[in-house]
Amino acid sequence: MKKRVKLTIEYLGTAYCGWQRQKNGISVQEVIEGALKKLFQTDIALTGSGRTDAGVHAKGQVAHFDIDSTVPVRNMPFALNSFLPDDIQILSAEEVGEDFHARFGAKKKTYRYTLYVDKHKHPLIDMQATNIHIRPDVALMQEAANKLVGEHDFKCFLAAGSSVKDTVRTIFSLDVDEIDDKIHVTVCGNGFLYNMVRILTGTLYYVGIKKLKGTDIDKILEGKERKLAGKTLPAKGLTLLSVSY
Amino acid sequence: MKKRVKLTIEYLGTAYCGWQRQKNGISVQEVIEGALKKLFQTDIALTGSGRTDAGVHAKGQVAHFDIDSTVPVRNMPFALNSFLPDDIQILSAEEVGEDFHARFGAKKKTYRYTLYVDKHKHPLIDMQATNIHIRPDVALMQEAANKLVGEHDFKCFLAAGSSVKDTVRTIFSLDVDEIDDKIHVTVCGNGFLYNMVRILTGTLYYVGIKKLKGTDIDKILEGKERKLAGKTLPAKGLTLLSVSY
Repeated sequence: MKKRVKLTIEYLGTAYCGWQRQKNGISVQEVIEGALKKLFQTDIALTGSGRTDAGVHAKGQVAHFDIDSTVPVRNMPFALNSFLPDDIQILSAEEVGEDFHARFGAKKKTYRYTLYVDKHKHPLIDMQATNIHIRPDVALMQEAANKLVGEHDFKCFLAAGSSVKDTVRTIFSLDVDEIDDKIHVTVCGNGFLYNMVRILTGTLYYVGIKKLKGTDIDKILEGKERKLAGKTLPAKGLTLLSVSY
Repeated sequence: MKKRVKLTIEYLGTAYCGWQRQKNGISVQEVIEGALKKLFQTDIALTGSGRTDAGVHAKGQVAHFDIDSTVPVRNMPFALNSFLPDDIQILSAEEVGEDFHARFGAKKKTYRYTLYVDKHKHPLIDMQATNIHIRPDVALMQEAANKLVGEHDFKCFLAAGSSVKDTVRTIFSLDVDEIDDKIHVTVCGNGFLYNMVRILTGTLYYVGIKKLKGTDIDKILEGKERKLAGKTLPAKGLTLLSVSY
């Protein structure tokens, strides 16, 4: 019987050109589609909740596909994982209604950017975090972050050269937390522009090290120009934590 | 002026055949010796506190070398790191007396083995932890661990085929902690036999899932036979945390 299956996927993005199929590199999507083909012996198109860039990780990426198969859905993660590399694994599979759509039905996405402060890189954490040399003032970062919560035109945080028209998004929450030696910027919103979280975190970091003032945030939002904001932080520090429907 | 330099080194062991130079693979030692040669333009022998196996990580491996150079010791980590890959970095360098010896002077070593419980592998943590499917009873593991603290003949935890003669070692502390979804076994001792921490943790895990009884620990220690103990856990879950002098 034909059914739609929702997958929750965790991956270490280091070795991949991102979620989406591309000519110049191996994508997470094509690796999973390869496993689906091995399991079901037919070509299956996998629809993700959205792209993640090259090097970005996911703890809870969501995708769906349609299949006519007698394989019980609860067994699919085990079966697929046996065809998948250690850096891409399916954490769960569930049958959903045919009106479920991983991309168009996504209501909230939560991303986390992780920074750590030291004069040297730390190999045991560096694959999933970005090394900074100056300790930022986390309270100042949180104050600036609070100004970004709500519905805004986030054109200032859109990567230069991107052609998207509608740059209004809603940020539901934006938290800056210092845990042990790490600083986590966790942002939940209804959607994000290309490179938005990496530029947003770079901007908050500039506020934290006083390269920008908290009041500059208002000017940056109003100015709607990429060049007013902080730098784009590296992809490796970013993780898609979850997608809600 | 000739001086002896002590390095503290962090590395992700995944890509390496271990600390020690070997014919069949790239070792951490030879990569650092390569960086030393680039910096000082001469062959330098690096002496580590001891071997770590293929795939084992280190947060605080210690090594020393002798050099006649005007490069200030405090600048050496920056200079060496510029020649090192992201998965091997020097965290600190300090000048020590000529009687310091990274291997023979080591008084205490602390290792940590990390387990995580889930039916699936988690790519974001799997490179530095071992996935187990059954949740062990951590209190039972700690009870069994307490029996191992002190001076004992640990022949039962020595990898089969190893030819070492003196198998008496002292464990100063052995703690089993559950933090979030991870279980850490942290052991501090005056030295460890080949594979000892991986077999010891595998044995405690068997106690935790009731495949062995706490009272079996006494029999295993007395029996002095590898086959009585639990299985050898994978290298990737093991990290050398620190070495004291």
